[in-house]
Amino acid sequence: MILNSRDIENLETRFRANFINSIGGFKSLVLIGTLSNQGNENLALFSSLFHIGANPPLCGIIIRPNQEKQNTLGNIMATGHYTINHVQASFYKKAHQCSAKYPDGLSEFEAVGLAPEYYNGITAPFVKDSNIKFACELLQKVDIEFNDTFLIIGRIIKAIVPMPFVQTDGYINIQQAQSITCSGLDAYHNTQQIARLSYARPNQQISEL
Amino acid sequence: MILNSRDIENLETRFRANFINSIGGFKSLVLIGTLSNQGNENLALFSSLFHIGANPPLCGIIIRPNQEKQNTLGNIMATGHYTINHVQASFYKKAHQCSAKYPDGLSEFEAVGLAPEYYNGITAPFVKDSNIKFACELLQKVDIEFNDTFLIIGRIIKAIVPMPFVQTDGYINIQQAQSITCSGLDAYHNTQQIARLSYARPNQQISEL
Repeated sequence: MILNSRDIENLETRFRANFINSIGGFKSLVLIGTLSNQGNENLALFSSLFHIGANPPLCGIIIRPNQEKQNTLGNIMATGHYTINHVQASFYKKAHQCSAKYPDGLSEFEAVGLAPEYYNGITAPFVKDSNIKFACELLQKVDIEFNDTFLIIGRIIKAIVPMPFVQTDGYINIQQAQSITCSGLDAYHNTQQIARLSYARPNQQISEL
Repeated sequence: MILNSRDIENLETRFRANFINSIGGFKSLVLIGTLSNQGNENLALFSSLFHIGANPPLCGIIIRPNQEKQNTLGNIMATGHYTINHVQASFYKKAHQCSAKYPDGLSEFEAVGLAPEYYNGITAPFVKDSNIKFACELLQKVDIEFNDTFLIIGRIIKAIVPMPFVQTDGYINIQQAQSITCSGLDAYHNTQQIARLSYARPNQQISEL
């Protein structure tokens, strides 16, 4: 099917949500942990994480504002800290359940049965079961006026990655660490590595690493 | 291993690039096609595409500025249009080769052997071999001062998705369409769907769709 602007506009709301959310390809699937100033833990599922740069180490997420104050956005603005935890197949249903609209102040860690974990110097809770996790410090909140969302730019200030998954050149084998990916609003996928490829140069054959 | 801010700062440059590029999880893997005002085609590999919203249909990419003028950023600024094309295992090495630094004005389509394809009303070339592809119109360029990159916000103005991959609720089965994902700077992965899950509500069992 070929859809133009008007066709996309005229799609039924739920159809369009599924369609536009899947057309961008596979996504990073992470749980974001935060703590409110009142000491309440929050855990939310995100698929909009993206890399901005390695030096300084920066990443971004897109956040939709909610009415409640003690949610991911409110807690990040209040404390400046948040944790990013990879989702694994062993607990992906618990991760999905974090999207349910629990009452303000109720901990999703408790509600879905994931254990929190704290590290020195980081206000926000990590997910104990995640092999790969890191913490960010808020750098900037950018308003996206077109749909009233926000881009949160963060600096990675702590990284927790078990040694067996870190290769000698710094590449983290996230597939071996059991991280999974997602598509659309609700589809979860394991991965199978095809290859790592050598640095591309004009007129030079690529090789598998 | 547990790394703090200072440890990350002190990593060897290439090690840090691999490490920080893989810590964010799996990524969308797409080829972005553009046309310069001089009529030269450009095709570049990106892994920073992310969903911003479905209504209006918006997505973002992070772009690093280059010296040359006829690159992705220059062409988007000049023409306002760009295409986003999913990468499939059948041509992932050609896609990877698009990252080589070819001379200004040379078409990566020609250099790597991918055929361009044009659709009515869209200035920029699509990748013929991609099953899933769409075109965007530039809405806003946001400066990210921390590392001199730019966020490009685009509105989806055309979507090309073969009917067999579109499910009745609008979800696009991108795995069936042979789209692949990537991790780090150079690792490519096929996917295996685990499940689609029902909408999450407090105190209600999740079911597989």
